[in-house]
Amino acid sequence: MNFSLDIHDLSPNSARLCLAVEQFIHGQLGFDRASRLLLAVSGGADSSALALILRILAPRLGLELSAMTVNHGLQPDAACTAAAAAAFCARLGIPCTTRTADVAGMAAREHLGLEEAGRHLRYAILAEERRAAEADFIVLGHHCADLTEDILMRLTRGSGWPAMAGMRARDDSRHLLRPLLCCKPHALRSILREYRFVWREDISNTDMRFKRNRMRHAVIPLLYKENPSLDSTMADLWRLAQQDRDYWDKTLAEITARHSWKKDPQGLCLPKEMLQGLHPAVRLRLYHKAVSSLIDGTNGTCHGQARAGTLTALDTALQAGRGETRFQLPGGIEASIHKGSVYFCLPGKLVRHNTMS
Amino acid sequence: MNFSLDIHDLSPNSARLCLAVEQFIHGQLGFDRASRLLLAVSGGADSSALALILRILAPRLGLELSAMTVNHGLQPDAACTAAAAAAFCARLGIPCTTRTADVAGMAAREHLGLEEAGRHLRYAILAEERRAAEADFIVLGHHCADLTEDILMRLTRGSGWPAMAGMRARDDSRHLLRPLLCCKPHALRSILREYRFVWREDISNTDMRFKRNRMRHAVIPLLYKENPSLDSTMADLWRLAQQDRDYWDKTLAEITARHSWKKDPQGLCLPKEMLQGLHPAVRLRLYHKAVSSLIDGTNGTCHGQARAGTLTALDTALQAGRGETRFQLPGGIEASIHKGSVYFCLPGKLVRHNTMS
Repeated sequence: MNFSLDIHDLSPNSARLCLAVEQFIHGQLGFDRASRLLLAVSGGADSSALALILRILAPRLGLELSAMTVNHGLQPDAACTAAAAAAFCARLGIPCTTRTADVAGMAAREHLGLEEAGRHLRYAILAEERRAAEADFIVLGHHCADLTEDILMRLTRGSGWPAMAGMRARDDSRHLLRPLLCCKPHALRSILREYRFVWREDISNTDMRFKRNRMRHAVIPLLYKENPSLDSTMADLWRLAQQDRDYWDKTLAEITARHSWKKDPQGLCLPKEMLQGLHPAVRLRLYHKAVSSLIDGTNGTCHGQARAGTLTALDTALQAGRGETRFQLPGGIEASIHKGSVYFCLPGKLVRHNTMS
Repeated sequence: MNFSLDIHDLSPNSARLCLAVEQFIHGQLGFDRASRLLLAVSGGADSSALALILRILAPRLGLELSAMTVNHGLQPDAACTAAAAAAFCARLGIPCTTRTADVAGMAAREHLGLEEAGRHLRYAILAEERRAAEADFIVLGHHCADLTEDILMRLTRGSGWPAMAGMRARDDSRHLLRPLLCCKPHALRSILREYRFVWREDISNTDMRFKRNRMRHAVIPLLYKENPSLDSTMADLWRLAQQDRDYWDKTLAEITARHSWKKDPQGLCLPKEMLQGLHPAVRLRLYHKAVSSLIDGTNGTCHGQARAGTLTALDTALQAGRGETRFQLPGGIEASIHKGSVYFCLPGKLVRHNTMS
């Protein structure tokens, strides 16, 4: 290594960036010293900056780093890009594994878009590697412009609140960390330039067949014209959502401590006594929690996020005493009402109202 | 009148539209039978359909209708448009008053954009007329596409949740009703066409100097391409927000019943005992409620809506025990912290920490 990774040797701007990430880690992520982190790297600017910044912070935070790059095989130079990511990690002294993923095959098999198939497969491989490497967390390079895109996409898709305001900085159920959510993308490129590190521009980032790119290149520039501080505004909304998420987690924990729900391999039941007397806003969050709990329990074979409108319709049916309506939720989960209790049933399972209630 | 206003004589589509509005009135607005309503009409399609639909529903709901049109004087044919609105009401047998507003003058005097000045002045004149006519509510013709625009504009501007998800269907502090929020604009035009009623297209609706029009004509069509049911998706989000608003109203009412805040002509104080032990998500809503209460008390001389980010920064300062920071809120309101209590002070007033706490 012919360069210094000591924070004291950085330019003021780069030092400030690293310290902002350190502060975000302390304030929002709060993981333990001496954590083992698996970095997801692609050879692009964001994940390269992630590796560099965490490598600089590693001695200060007592981190043990390893990395992994997934060759999606979608572009002709995919193997080359994966090799560049591995070489970048080698220069930083971070051990890096390369894995190949058949995204096109999965997309065809499971009738998914390339974007969605790529995301599911990448997370599945990262999760496997995390367990193999005995790492505490997978670390992703999402930054504040990704947050803005994510909020717009969730808003358009019909996520409710607080899910709408974007991805988590720390997701314990999936062992994910996103320490760069406080960073602007140009700052990440600046620190790479300061080290004269080169990165590869992912050509798929300009492919307008992908919804994320249409948001990034067509919609968001128009919103920036209305509000040049759009990223900060979205970051404020994100912080509010994290706070609300924490509030609802605590409120629901109190309720499920009083009246526990009933779970079996077929599904989950929210008993009548639990739902009675609750404000509709609380019931809605209980439904969300129940669906997430079911989805989390399938270890990735079932995925998706319930639209706010579907769960509201379920609650309207409950309030109106309409017993026999069934509601289709993402991942093939089915919701139904029986004698004032609400049932969520996994795909292909038969709900047994009698044994569960 | 050479046409029938009996709902039984309408085409099935128009009857369905009227019944949907009636159902929305029962479910979301819940005002009393025999209410006196002042309709804001402009000669445009939305408010003309509002007048027609409410005229059809009036005997069923026992409504007493009057109308008012405001001549903004901004376009050369403004007087003509106001006259057309009045003539339309006359055909329906609804008494209509015309008032003239000097929007350009107010914009220059108060350093506001034409759009903002027009909105403030229109609401002020309508409020005056409502009191003079002893009407219970002012009724506005906003429909579900306006809701979508409004959500996008609030999101971009930095409104928090639930304020972000749009205008109220019923606003008791301003005596406003919006019974068409459940309607699609093309359905409103269809019922007018069925009656062979003509309406005037407001040429300012295509003026791209106005932010609302840039949202309507440039941003929203791109989002429709991603989600052709965007209006329904936004209506779902809106319903969720109304539910959450109700939840927070009730939760805050319980808190302010236990520990009341202190209000005097200078401003308002949230005492330390009230704030202690509350979740940050609750404290944030208390700040919002306090600011709204101050703004409402000024009878329109002070307006605006606090950005989520500013109130979060105030709360962070409170938690960190930073006493001497001051925060500028909309309408010139200033927030400050003193010995664990939070003060909101009206513009030009001096906060007196000692007498209030």
